[in-house]
Order: sequence, then structure tokens, then C-alpha cells
Amino acid sequence: MSLFELHHNDGQARAGLIDLGHTRIETPVFMPVGTAASVKAILPCMLNAVGVKMILSNTYHLYLRPGVETIVKLGGLHRFSGWKKGILTDSGGFQVFSLSQLREITQEGVSFKSHIDGSSHFFTPEKVVELQSRWGSDIAMVLDECPPYTQEKRYIKKSLDITMNWAYRSVEARKRFPLKALFGIVQGGIFEDLRKEAALRIRELSFDGFAIGGLSVGEPREDMLAATAVVTPLLPETKPRYAMGVGKPEDIVELIGLGVDMFDCVLPTRNARNGSLFTKYGVLNIKRSEFKDDPDPIEASCGCYTCRHFSRGYLRHLYKAKELSFYTLATIHNLYYYVNLVKEARAAILTNRFEAFKRDFFDRYRSGEMA
Amino acid sequence: MSLFELHHNDGQARAGLIDLGHTRIETPVFMPVGTAASVKAILPCMLNAVGVKMILSNTYHLYLRPGVETIVKLGGLHRFSGWKKGILTDSGGFQVFSLSQLREITQEGVSFKSHIDGSSHFFTPEKVVELQSRWGSDIAMVLDECPPYTQEKRYIKKSLDITMNWAYRSVEARKRFPLKALFGIVQGGIFEDLRKEAALRIRELSFDGFAIGGLSVGEPREDMLAATAVVTPLLPETKPRYAMGVGKPEDIVELIGLGVDMFDCVLPTRNARNGSLFTKYGVLNIKRSEFKDDPDPIEASCGCYTCRHFSRGYLRHLYKAKELSFYTLATIHNLYYYVNLVKEARAAILTNRFEAFKRDFFDRYRSGEMA
Repeated sequence: MSLFELHHNDGQARAGLIDLGHTRIETPVFMPVGTAASVKAILPCMLNAVGVKMILSNTYHLYLRPGVETIVKLGGLHRFSGWKKGILTDSGGFQVFSLSQLREITQEGVSFKSHIDGSSHFFTPEKVVELQSRWGSDIAMVLDECPPYTQEKRYIKKSLDITMNWAYRSVEARKRFPLKALFGIVQGGIFEDLRKEAALRIRELSFDGFAIGGLSVGEPREDMLAATAVVTPLLPETKPRYAMGVGKPEDIVELIGLGVDMFDCVLPTRNARNGSLFTKYGVLNIKRSEFKDDPDPIEASCGCYTCRHFSRGYLRHLYKAKELSFYTLATIHNLYYYVNLVKEARAAILTNRFEAFKRDFFDRYRSGEMA
Repeated sequence: MSLFELHHNDGQARAGLIDLGHTRIETPVFMPVGTAASVKAILPCMLNAVGVKMILSNTYHLYLRPGVETIVKLGGLHRFSGWKKGILTDSGGFQVFSLSQLREITQEGVSFKSHIDGSSHFFTPEKVVELQSRWGSDIAMVLDECPPYTQEKRYIKKSLDITMNWAYRSVEARKRFPLKALFGIVQGGIFEDLRKEAALRIRELSFDGFAIGGLSVGEPREDMLAATAVVTPLLPETKPRYAMGVGKPEDIVELIGLGVDMFDCVLPTRNARNGSLFTKYGVLNIKRSEFKDDPDPIEASCGCYTCRHFSRGYLRHLYKAKELSFYTLATIHNLYYYVNLVKEARAAILTNRFEAFKRDFFDRYRSGEMA
């Protein structure tokens, strides 16, 4: 069984299929973030109803809480979380560098203190592969260093060498710890030559797919697009490409056009809880007083549970009253929006209409909040 | 069409049916509380799956937020909330006296200040009937005064006279503001002679059902049982009886035995959010460290969505991580417990086994928290 099957190219844009055995996932695919083995404010049965096929969970967070052995004792990630479809686990590299304190990087690995209780821990590429293997992750990620994009080039280059060394050791570790799929990660910051070097070096290793890391970390949008544009042509056609942490709807559409197949981002779920709701015309902020008596759904043409049953006026009321059901209803809508955005992109690719799809999207969609 | 049909008596315990036209509700029935037109942390589709047939919403809260006209403009309570089955609306009497500040009671009505923004408002029995009529409530409650049970008898007697006067005016108001059903409320505190007087006076008015108010407000359990025991035999056999705000599982079982048909309480939903989960053996506190690696569901014999898919270990993890899905999963379980408790009581009544059911319940169920 091959993990990835490429169905069609339309320019650089790709439509394909990731086959996990228990779940077949059409690409491009958007993966909601379930950091703590739960996508915030939404249950597995609703994720299914929304059309989600794969979620992202997080080695760093789960390692700290509930802890490695609890997940193993409770049957691995799928049984633990009650989510039976795809689970991709981030290695924790990004979190070690963004959340934890007092981290120290050596060739051997990274030591860090828990952001929860300050306790000391040490991650190696081998350990991270082992954890993801023991938990039964469908797609595991290698440990990498994700330096701030503002770091000077000399540091990014040195960091890249560590990440490459770790990638090699991860491939070796996998021989001892079986994994359905292991992805390498292309770093290199905003430097096109380093990105190119990273892509060329990592494609030599026997990974099942390749991620582009260090995107959507605050860098200018052009830098994100440029970094992706130099990397994707260098990656093997036959393996899936994943833009980690991307992103806004407009970024996802652009990156699909550059040949990326997989995306994850906290935006749809986090913004939902803040009252920011995605529509084809841009983001609607449900707080606004103009929605007080509005009987229309968030978006008339939307087929999600929320739009089929509830008015903007009611949603605004729930938001103002801080009712927990608001978070669930808003999350359902935003995830439905994201899932259908990539589904429509796929349909366009399969019929060689991707450029028209992209043009239509940008004609309608206003960045930022709707007036 | 008659609102209530009595199917069977077993001792004082009753099995019946409330027919709202759009929904037929077997009694005894438990109604979850949806104060702000939303049962906290659970969506209408899940309430249906749990077997809920009627919820309670609250005139006082909805009047203050989102406001009378918003609900009217958005099509009334059912369309507004997306909940198409039964909605009983409390009059707001209890909340005016428990939540608001600077209330002043006269024969005419009650003035009070909003607990949200301090604004001034005035409720009369007529106004409260009008609101519930305009919102399309299925079962409306009359405005009453609910004095603290610790008040001296002289005050409770005076208060009772006001409540009776308001009840009479509510019946009159209903001629102008059509309602599917309007319930009178028996007050009288912990004084059996006043409870008796209240029941005898209120049954003379043409209500569709009768509530017992002022229970579960902190009084000793024996006083609650005694007050109910003197009232139910005086109420018409042919109309439903509703114990407002009751209560704990053990109180509901006792009151069903005294001839009560309807119950509402925040306990299952509120306790869920605190990690207290109902089982046939008593309350299980999911916080306890003994559940860390526990692969069993909350209760092995429970058929709810939560127990069918998730372990105690996972639920404890969600609780500790403050994941929003915990509140939903716990609420589903606790409401399922309550709905099935009264369903089992009904089945026992229909086969003249209520006393055995009650004995079995108390043999198993431990008040307070499980060791």
C-alpha cells in the first residue's frame, strides 16, 4: 500500500489521496488542530459531520499532559481520543521553541522546562519517533528546530544542519520503532538559498512526505510565498507536501497553487471562539450590534449544522451571554468553511479550473474583517 | 386537545402524557435548564439524542438579554433557540428575588434592577403572561413571589396573598394573551397549613397545571418532602404537577412517589461542568487521580454517547486540560442519567413496581460523592 497517490496536476496545484488504511483522505486536505487530543469545543461525531478526515495532535503537549504512559495504557491516540480517522502528530519541535522555557539545543537533542509546571525534560529525535510510534500516530513528524524567522542567516544555517542531522537520525530510529508514515521537515527561514539546500538535502532521505516548517510564524506574507515557491518544485512529485501551521484562507489558496497538499492551523477554531466567522466574503464578527435582530444564518449558502439551524441574532446572543454552545456552533461553522474551501479547490484542480477558482476566491474574499 | 393525560397510578406515583401538539412528552419528565435559551455546553441535536423532550428557559434572563423584541423578531423562542420540542418558561419570579438588586414588591407588581447592568424594570403578572405569549412558550408560569424559606410565617402568609392575587390576574391576562398552557404556583414556605391553603386556593383557578415553588432553596430535605406531601393530594388528578428546581436524583425519586410529574434542575448540567458525574451508585468525581489511567467508561451499563466512546482516563485528561469538549461530554452523560432515571421510574409505575424501583435506587445510590 502506498501512502500517497497523485490524481491530477493543474499547473503546480495537485489533487491526490492519502491512504491510511483505516481512512482515505482526499487532498488538498485541511487538518484541524487538536493539541491535547481534542479539537477545542467540538466532539468527534461533529468533526465527522463537518467532513474532517484528519486532525493534528501534539507530541509536546501530550507528553507533558496526560503523559506518555497514560496514552499507551489507554490504547494509543485513536482509542484515547475517540477519534478514529487520521491523526498526524507534530513532533513538538515548534512548541519546545515557542512555549517552553530555558531550552538548550545540542547536537544530541533539546532540553527544556515544561510550560505547565517547570519540570525538566529532554527530547531527542529518537525519543520523539519512539513516542509517536508507541501512540499509534498515523503520520509522525521528525524533531526539528524552528528558529524565529528574524534570526540572522548564520544562525539559521547552523540550525538547519542540526535539523538535518536529526532528520537522518529519525529515519534510523524508525527502523526500531515502526511508523505508518514519517515526514521530514524543510526549514531554512526566509532565505531562499537555505530553503533550497534544505529541500535538496531532505529529499534524499526516505521519508513518506515532506513538510515545510517555519511558515506562518510572523514573517511577511511574500516571504512565506517565496519560501514555499522555491521548495515545492524540489520535492518529489510522488509524496505529499504539508505546509505546517498554514493558515489564513487566502494563504491556503495560494499555497495549493504552489503545489502544497496538506494544511493545519488553529485559526478556524481559535477565531471561532473569538466570534470571528469565515464566509466567502471574508470574516464576519458576530459581536457587531448590526446582527442583534438578524434572522439570517452566518452565510446563506453554507450547509453546516450551524447555518442550517441558527440565526446571526441567536449566535450573537450566545456570544454576548458567554454560552458554551456558542463556541461549538462557531467552531462547526469555521471548520466546515475550511474543509469545503480545500474541497472546492480539489474539484477545481480535477477539472483544470484552479486558476479560475483562485481568481473567483480573491475577487470575493476580503482580507481582515468585513465592514 | 387536552394538555395532560393520566395513564396510570401506582400508589401516589403517576405516569402520564403531556401533549404539546408538536411534541408528546411522557411523564414523569425531567427538563434541563436552558436559562438563556441554550442548555449550557450542549446543542439541540445532542439534547434530542439524549432523549430530552422539554427544556426550561427563563423569562427574567431573556427579558434582560437579548431582550423582548429580539426574540419576537427572530420568530419566538423555538425558532430563536433552534430547539423545536417543548419549552417551559419560568416567569422570572424566582430570579427577581434571587438575582436582582433593590427589588420592591407591591400589590401591582415588582420593580427591580438588572443584575447585568443595574437598569430599572417593572414586572406585573400581566406583563409576564404577555411576554411568554409573544415568545410562543409551550408552558408559561405565573409571576409569583418566592420568599426565602427562613422568613417568618407572618411574612410568608402576606406574600402568599400577593402571589394568589397575581395568579388570579394572570388567568385574566391570559384571555388577552393566548397561551398553550399556563401553570399556577403553590407557595407557602415550610408551613404545612400555608401550603395547604395555597393549594386549595390555587386549584380553584383555571390553570392547566400546578407547580410547587419554593422547594430546593436551601430548606432541610424533610421540609421539602413534607411540603410536597401536603400539597399533591390537594391538586386535581387530571392536571400535571411540577416541582420547580428539584433536584437531586434522590429528591426526584421521592417526589415522584408523592405524585409529582415534572422536574427541572441545574444540577446535572452545572455539576457536569465541575466534573461531578452521576452514576447509579452515586456521584463520581472525575478529578480524582485514581482515574488517570482508567480505561472504563463513567458507567459500564450507561448507553450515552460519552460512555460509548470515551474512558474515564480521557475525560479526566480533558478536565485537567480545561478542554471545552469536557463540558459537553460530561453534560451529555449527566442529562442522559437524569432522563433515564425518570424513564425507569415511569416504566416501574406502569407495572406497579414503583416501590421496588425506589428501594433498589436507594439501596445502590450513595448521597454525596463516591469514595
